[in-house]
Amino acid sequence: MIPSDTLGWGTARNCIREVYEYGIRLKAEIGADKVFDFSLGNPSVPAPPQVKDAILKALEDPTLHDYTVAPGRPGLRKAISDQLNARCGVHTLPEDIYVTCGASAAVTCSIKGLLKPGEEAVAFAPHYPEYPVFTRTAGGVFKFCSLRREDLQMDVEALEAVLTEKTAVVLVNSPNNPSGAVLNEESLRKLADCLYKAQERFGHPIYIISDEPYRELVYDMSDVPSPIQFYDNTVVCYSYSKSLSLPGERIGYYAVSDRATDREKVFASLAGAARSYGYVNPPSLMQRVIEACLNLKPDIRTYKENRDILCGILDEVKMPYIHPDGAFYLFIRCPIPDAKEFCEHARKYGLLLVPSNDFGITGYARAAYCVNGEMIRRSLPAFRELSREYGLC
Amino acid sequence: MIPSDTLGWGTARNCIREVYEYGIRLKAEIGADKVFDFSLGNPSVPAPPQVKDAILKALEDPTLHDYTVAPGRPGLRKAISDQLNARCGVHTLPEDIYVTCGASAAVTCSIKGLLKPGEEAVAFAPHYPEYPVFTRTAGGVFKFCSLRREDLQMDVEALEAVLTEKTAVVLVNSPNNPSGAVLNEESLRKLADCLYKAQERFGHPIYIISDEPYRELVYDMSDVPSPIQFYDNTVVCYSYSKSLSLPGERIGYYAVSDRATDREKVFASLAGAARSYGYVNPPSLMQRVIEACLNLKPDIRTYKENRDILCGILDEVKMPYIHPDGAFYLFIRCPIPDAKEFCEHARKYGLLLVPSNDFGITGYARAAYCVNGEMIRRSLPAFRELSREYGLC
Repeated sequence: MIPSDTLGWGTARNCIREVYEYGIRLKAEIGADKVFDFSLGNPSVPAPPQVKDAILKALEDPTLHDYTVAPGRPGLRKAISDQLNARCGVHTLPEDIYVTCGASAAVTCSIKGLLKPGEEAVAFAPHYPEYPVFTRTAGGVFKFCSLRREDLQMDVEALEAVLTEKTAVVLVNSPNNPSGAVLNEESLRKLADCLYKAQERFGHPIYIISDEPYRELVYDMSDVPSPIQFYDNTVVCYSYSKSLSLPGERIGYYAVSDRATDREKVFASLAGAARSYGYVNPPSLMQRVIEACLNLKPDIRTYKENRDILCGILDEVKMPYIHPDGAFYLFIRCPIPDAKEFCEHARKYGLLLVPSNDFGITGYARAAYCVNGEMIRRSLPAFRELSREYGLC
Repeated sequence: MIPSDTLGWGTARNCIREVYEYGIRLKAEIGADKVFDFSLGNPSVPAPPQVKDAILKALEDPTLHDYTVAPGRPGLRKAISDQLNARCGVHTLPEDIYVTCGASAAVTCSIKGLLKPGEEAVAFAPHYPEYPVFTRTAGGVFKFCSLRREDLQMDVEALEAVLTEKTAVVLVNSPNNPSGAVLNEESLRKLADCLYKAQERFGHPIYIISDEPYRELVYDMSDVPSPIQFYDNTVVCYSYSKSLSLPGERIGYYAVSDRATDREKVFASLAGAARSYGYVNPPSLMQRVIEACLNLKPDIRTYKENRDILCGILDEVKMPYIHPDGAFYLFIRCPIPDAKEFCEHARKYGLLLVPSNDFGITGYARAAYCVNGEMIRRSLPAFRELSREYGLC
């Protein structure tokens, strides 16, 4: 019989896609130049040219399309481990790295492999909308607590209030989708301290699953701190979707900290979860591409420029927002409590924003600025009219 | 806390990989020319040259690596639907096709989307060893019944005995891994008849999940019949791993029959399962490759030749086996009841075979003949000695 949960997940309207599809209809109706579509997080910077070179080189190998071992090619796992160690000062081995079909696969397999049915996963709102789905699929209970509303940094009291003896995993996503906020070192130290005490209190490990696909996309800081630097029981989940602009190719990894409790068992359990979800091996051609390209730095100037244009516009029309340090999202503070209503109003001016409700928080509108910079510039009059409607300017 | 099931799946020795890895050590020890490795089902025929052409062509498109919609590019879904309709005389629409990361993904998502926790999945032994894992992951109970031992065709009495009111799905895999047997039309008609009656008796739909990655690999028959031709409630799962020799790239599909009960709900539920398992979209480059190449016929002459060489050798040394019509596997009937012991003995002569125990049946040894034909020829003396040991020749 058809289960109600999978049926629900398959038929539920995706809040982001809905806005995007509305935008397509609106463009046909009133003209593309009058629509300012900030709905989708699809990288607008092309993949670096070395990706094409790596594909051409891979085509010379007759074993290119063969199965690989399930966790990925040994050379790729070594390269990822080296990169992570150099970046975070940790000491993972290639055996701690499992190459996956993107970060979503890494996160859902990590939850499945670290949480027994009935146990709880905790996330921080605003959170990625798939976390509750992944948790429920593992038989777990999804809970969330809010970050500080003023700056989206750690609110230890809110976290304490949601932890129970059933807490098995805590999901961290910094730089954050949907807000672009980056958890600073102080926040991560507070988080680690709180979880170490909770482990002690409850007498069992609590694992952080750190979902970091936007790690390289930061604009004003030299580096994004990662939970793996401050907390031993951490699994890092990563994707090359954003840093190499390869979102459709589905390639990323999870890495188990070398200091994790039951490190080998954690790795094995996540591998078992991947097997049970039907992941045989990560796409073989793309494994070679990543091995050749993983140390390339993404060209983030475009995103930074876009962010600065958008922030300039919002400043000019006096519309409040949370200044984003990373990713390619910005959270506008809605001038009315109902974010859905605000986003509906914005549509009148051709502005397509995503209400924050599906991210576990009310009162914000997400603007994705991985778009054409010229479009952002042209959106100024629309934002001004929206702002005027609410008496902000 | 680490769940015992995922930990078990991640640490369990894979019977096939174990033999394969033993072979690597043995080759280093006694020389590669003295080892006859029939362990792995990795296609030995290279991908057709048009695959490379399609990759080169795809590289011209700047949107190549972008996200696609979750079920795959519209043109690819249309091409798959057209192909399936022409082949099976059905009337699927592109909306019935969901492109997946290979057949394993298609099967595990189909089970998850069609089976409520506590319900039962039934397979026919010998069966693919991942079916119990996929079923358990969906919260289901895995059951199996045997095919007729003499010819591996449908044994309706055995099937009747295992069906209950909790049966939600029946897994069919023809041509079969591990035996190479193909269910004939008579078997599929009996199966359909039995399941139609069971649906009537139990008052709810029972879905066939037809796992068909070896559909194109048949040698003596013009075409392999599919359950979708005889039974309305069928979901076809397919992979291009074998037909286009792309096993590492992970691309296939599931197709819901146009005559299935609750057709749209079935499709949505499977899509929800795919979402919950972290499948965002099938790899974007490979989607384009398949769209360009899906109607290519695989070059199966090599496999047919290999099969004929191996059958000739077994005939010559009087070792009994089940004549395989398809796939690239052959089932040797062990002359002793314990297949593991028989395969151990075979190792003495450098022969690497996989015991049938993990396929849900005792007394057989699997030989994968997707290998170098010359190696098969050279294995004659080894097979002769093995046969002599058991007094067969």
